[in-house]
Amino acid sequence: MPKDKVPDVVIRRLVTYLRVLNELEAGPNDYISSAKIADLAAVNSAQVRKDLAMFGEFGKQGVGYPILALREELISILKADREMSIAIFGVGELGTALNRYLTSRRKATPDYRFVVTGLFDIDESKIGTFVEGIPILHTQDLPQVLEDEEIKIGVITVPASVAQEVVTFAVSCGIKGFLNFAPVRLKVPEDIRVQNSDVTLDLQELAFYL
Amino acid sequence: MPKDKVPDVVIRRLVTYLRVLNELEAGPNDYISSAKIADLAAVNSAQVRKDLAMFGEFGKQGVGYPILALREELISILKADREMSIAIFGVGELGTALNRYLTSRRKATPDYRFVVTGLFDIDESKIGTFVEGIPILHTQDLPQVLEDEEIKIGVITVPASVAQEVVTFAVSCGIKGFLNFAPVRLKVPEDIRVQNSDVTLDLQELAFYL
Repeated sequence: MPKDKVPDVVIRRLVTYLRVLNELEAGPNDYISSAKIADLAAVNSAQVRKDLAMFGEFGKQGVGYPILALREELISILKADREMSIAIFGVGELGTALNRYLTSRRKATPDYRFVVTGLFDIDESKIGTFVEGIPILHTQDLPQVLEDEEIKIGVITVPASVAQEVVTFAVSCGIKGFLNFAPVRLKVPEDIRVQNSDVTLDLQELAFYL
Repeated sequence: MPKDKVPDVVIRRLVTYLRVLNELEAGPNDYISSAKIADLAAVNSAQVRKDLAMFGEFGKQGVGYPILALREELISILKADREMSIAIFGVGELGTALNRYLTSRRKATPDYRFVVTGLFDIDESKIGTFVEGIPILHTQDLPQVLEDEEIKIGVITVPASVAQEVVTFAVSCGIKGFLNFAPVRLKVPEDIRVQNSDVTLDLQELAFYL
């Protein structure tokens, strides 16, 4: 099925299934039922079966899915074994925190696929300093960096007021995917992908129910 | 409308509308159309009107909604002016990062409603040290802390292997809401609220499309 025909919500669930499978100790003869996946992933089991069937994965009646094989299949569907290089734009509080978090995940799990390869800011006092061995460069140096290495994902942790211009610039330089932490809606061309994340939004939503 | 009858997705949108309204400079005579809110919030304008109508907010035909009044109304609906105290469980990389982030948001915007009032860990080498003026206490000291102050939200940044037991314990002590960063599905009683957040999940989902 073509990527752009797969609904976001399905991908979100597949990513969650892969995560729950990764958490299991399993040998080549171990199976997992859709009910168990459903329980761990917080979806209903009919949904699990439907999602997996979309990609040709059918469980064995009364037994379930072979854990290792299903894990490999999900990794293949999600191309989850490809290393993805990340550039962080905006090395303030949150940018620094994310960099530390991603770097320590990578140290803890060597096959962690996300690797920070670039740090960008416009604050002169930061430029030229090093964080976890990576130099902070001026955002305007992005084109030169992209001559030597590919950056798959731009993490946007700049102030809201400049988020759009940073993304517009990064798109013009060739970056095609963004994880946005700025509280603004980014306008991007149709072929550019933006994922939005905001701890405050999560907290606001949670707080409503408390 | 009773809280538990409002779908999550509606609250998520209301929180986003409030955020876009907060980003605007506005005087008492300034109006905003549902189309403009829709554009800034990345939803369609019919949805905006439907969401706001659910709470009795009706725009003026051809003009829209009065910005300041609508902002106040959303704050009231979401009870977004209540201060919410947060305890962070697990003061590792991510817990420390979140603490710094929340603390600096609060310093930058004094009416930022989320305030970290407690830090908990089980690592003896951390207990008794201070972060941003708050001492790290042993998780088992939670009941004593709750005798003196209320904690509304528990942020879960402990390893996946202990997340459930920490939450079970915190629930037994009286905390009713959790923002969970551990890659596990938490089992909680029906009256307990859990919001899940995971940067890696966001990145995995984003990466599928790149």
